[in-house]
Amino acid sequence: MDIDALRRDTPGTAHRLHLNNAGAGLLSRPTLDAVTAHLELEATIGGYEAARQEQHRIDATYTSLARLIGGRPDEIALFDNSTHAWNAAFYALTFKPGDRILTGRAEYGSNVLAYLQVARRTGAEIVVVPDDPSGQLDTAALAELIDERTRLVGISHVPTSGGLINPAAEIGRITRAAGVPFLLDATQSVGQFPVDVEAIGCDMLTATGRKFLRGPRGTGFLWVRSEALEHLDPHVVEIHSATWDGGRGFTWQPGARRFETWETAYANVLGLDAAVRQALDLGLDRIGERALALGAHLRDRLDDLPGVTTHDLGEHRCAIVTATVDGLSATEVAAGLARQRINVTTTVPEQTQFDTEHRGVHPLVRLSPHYYNTEAELDRTVEVMAALARTAR
Amino acid sequence: MDIDALRRDTPGTAHRLHLNNAGAGLLSRPTLDAVTAHLELEATIGGYEAARQEQHRIDATYTSLARLIGGRPDEIALFDNSTHAWNAAFYALTFKPGDRILTGRAEYGSNVLAYLQVARRTGAEIVVVPDDPSGQLDTAALAELIDERTRLVGISHVPTSGGLINPAAEIGRITRAAGVPFLLDATQSVGQFPVDVEAIGCDMLTATGRKFLRGPRGTGFLWVRSEALEHLDPHVVEIHSATWDGGRGFTWQPGARRFETWETAYANVLGLDAAVRQALDLGLDRIGERALALGAHLRDRLDDLPGVTTHDLGEHRCAIVTATVDGLSATEVAAGLARQRINVTTTVPEQTQFDTEHRGVHPLVRLSPHYYNTEAELDRTVEVMAALARTAR
Repeated sequence: MDIDALRRDTPGTAHRLHLNNAGAGLLSRPTLDAVTAHLELEATIGGYEAARQEQHRIDATYTSLARLIGGRPDEIALFDNSTHAWNAAFYALTFKPGDRILTGRAEYGSNVLAYLQVARRTGAEIVVVPDDPSGQLDTAALAELIDERTRLVGISHVPTSGGLINPAAEIGRITRAAGVPFLLDATQSVGQFPVDVEAIGCDMLTATGRKFLRGPRGTGFLWVRSEALEHLDPHVVEIHSATWDGGRGFTWQPGARRFETWETAYANVLGLDAAVRQALDLGLDRIGERALALGAHLRDRLDDLPGVTTHDLGEHRCAIVTATVDGLSATEVAAGLARQRINVTTTVPEQTQFDTEHRGVHPLVRLSPHYYNTEAELDRTVEVMAALARTAR
Repeated sequence: MDIDALRRDTPGTAHRLHLNNAGAGLLSRPTLDAVTAHLELEATIGGYEAARQEQHRIDATYTSLARLIGGRPDEIALFDNSTHAWNAAFYALTFKPGDRILTGRAEYGSNVLAYLQVARRTGAEIVVVPDDPSGQLDTAALAELIDERTRLVGISHVPTSGGLINPAAEIGRITRAAGVPFLLDATQSVGQFPVDVEAIGCDMLTATGRKFLRGPRGTGFLWVRSEALEHLDPHVVEIHSATWDGGRGFTWQPGARRFETWETAYANVLGLDAAVRQALDLGLDRIGERALALGAHLRDRLDDLPGVTTHDLGEHRCAIVTATVDGLSATEVAAGLARQRINVTTTVPEQTQFDTEHRGVHPLVRLSPHYYNTEAELDRTVEVMAALARTAR
């Protein structure tokens, strides 16, 4: 990887030391240009007319995404964020009293709220599968808990709150053996390292464009295995998702398009396509290798600092690094880093409720490098963290 | 209104004769710049960091929209399109067998499909209120039909398929007297002429950014009267719409924000704000006066052409003009206009099912000027239509 060239193509690297890729990755110039070129085209010839002219490129986005995650283009639906994508899948499942949703401690806050809402509405039960000693989801416990009452296994691949990579493929083996739908929230993993729906064996996967994929804000997608469609009853319907039968009925569009809406920000779609192509060109293997190595390097260096502790769980850990500094709140540390133009965020207790209940460590400082960051940037960050830790003692 | 100056600020007017404002209006340069400037800022300092820096402008968008339609900023929720906005309101209503949804023949196709889905799911009934002799919704018939079984009156203010303006304020007087929720789909009216939720007396209103408001594609909003919130049970929940209670419950955010999702394309939001401000600066009264006058002028001229018929209904008609040419399909006419760089569309039978059932006239050629179009452009369009009609005879 030619990191210098990649950074020259990433305007933000000249202005900020960006360790907030788990929030939103820095746009590359080609991705930014794909968005703005389409906006200019819309302004020049009209919004509908621009979409018609670029229809082949819009269609190609589905192909790019299918290449990225291993599914088929017709199994993909585009959304303005991963929450709407996840909702489209989850709320299409029907639950009755006594049905069980199995999830993990790392589950994303929005998903947890949706489980709570549906549990209250239908009488379904939420079961939080415990962690194994490493802090990842305990697959042996999952295998014991899964039974005929289990209507869904919903897992966050990588939490928003730490470096954990949940053992998605092992979970997939268990759900497939049990014949239970597996909804994988891959918001923090897609674009960070290879994610393959066949290797994992999930039935539904959701992801966002803006994080490790480096796409525009306001993009996301859902992948649904074709065989899973028959078990899903889309909660909402509109003219793009279904065809009127001429009377008082309608039939769903084939494939995952039945979850989409007609109106879409196509400039953002084309930006997402550009970002996905860039990731495919670089190779997800290489991206993952470098991103995870940078995460490990940063974690190790921070752990070596007096007064600094990292908090990432699991056997395999990713580019998300969470830390605390003795004597300083996470907000104070983030503010200290921001003063040095280092972009980080802090974890939010209510965004991983079960993790918060179990560990009680949040908020933490969250630092999330990506492949285009440099070792020198990490060293600089460690220096600033060390200085912050010294002032606090 | 300085039409020349407005056209200089609208790049597309130099390239196309745009009569597809009912599809997507042409972006003005200030609106386009608002979008691209924020995208550049995101690329320069990071996506989350840009949103934080521009938070006051993002917040101001709610104020602009409230000024536009007469509600309060906290009664507004932003979406990526009007369908998601409408769905958020409609699917938050609960129905039981025998409940009735009253709607009109002009109702938008997506809304109709949603009614059909919910009717099938809950046993509610759909009642299509007939038109009066002018072709607008018959308010006397509505007043007779509305009763204790009526759970919702859902009306499209202006249909996607013609120049009709439904008598929204009269409908509002009837729904308020009956104490029945009134959901107004104002997708084609907001931005075209003044729309005021207090004058109309609706309880929920949805609109899009991209049409007569001239905002970016991928923007829309919902307005919900505060008093109506207690009757709505949002169908989905996520971390932005509700607050975790620390246990197994949550409370909704105050106001309409409970319908939003956390992740948003803020560049588009700021573009929407720019478009709304431009409309407010020009004045919706003046915009409406000119847009409707251009529509009437075009309709009159087309009606005078041999072999051309217009099909717009209602006592009061807007800037949307629908027509047929003897001997040519709507697609052929649209293609003939496109060859002269005149942007129009054709109506789609399945997008206004009840109108299609009643009239059977679709598809029609749909021509939709806006205030920035000129009389000379309309004359040119009439010339081309006349030539098309001559060749078909």
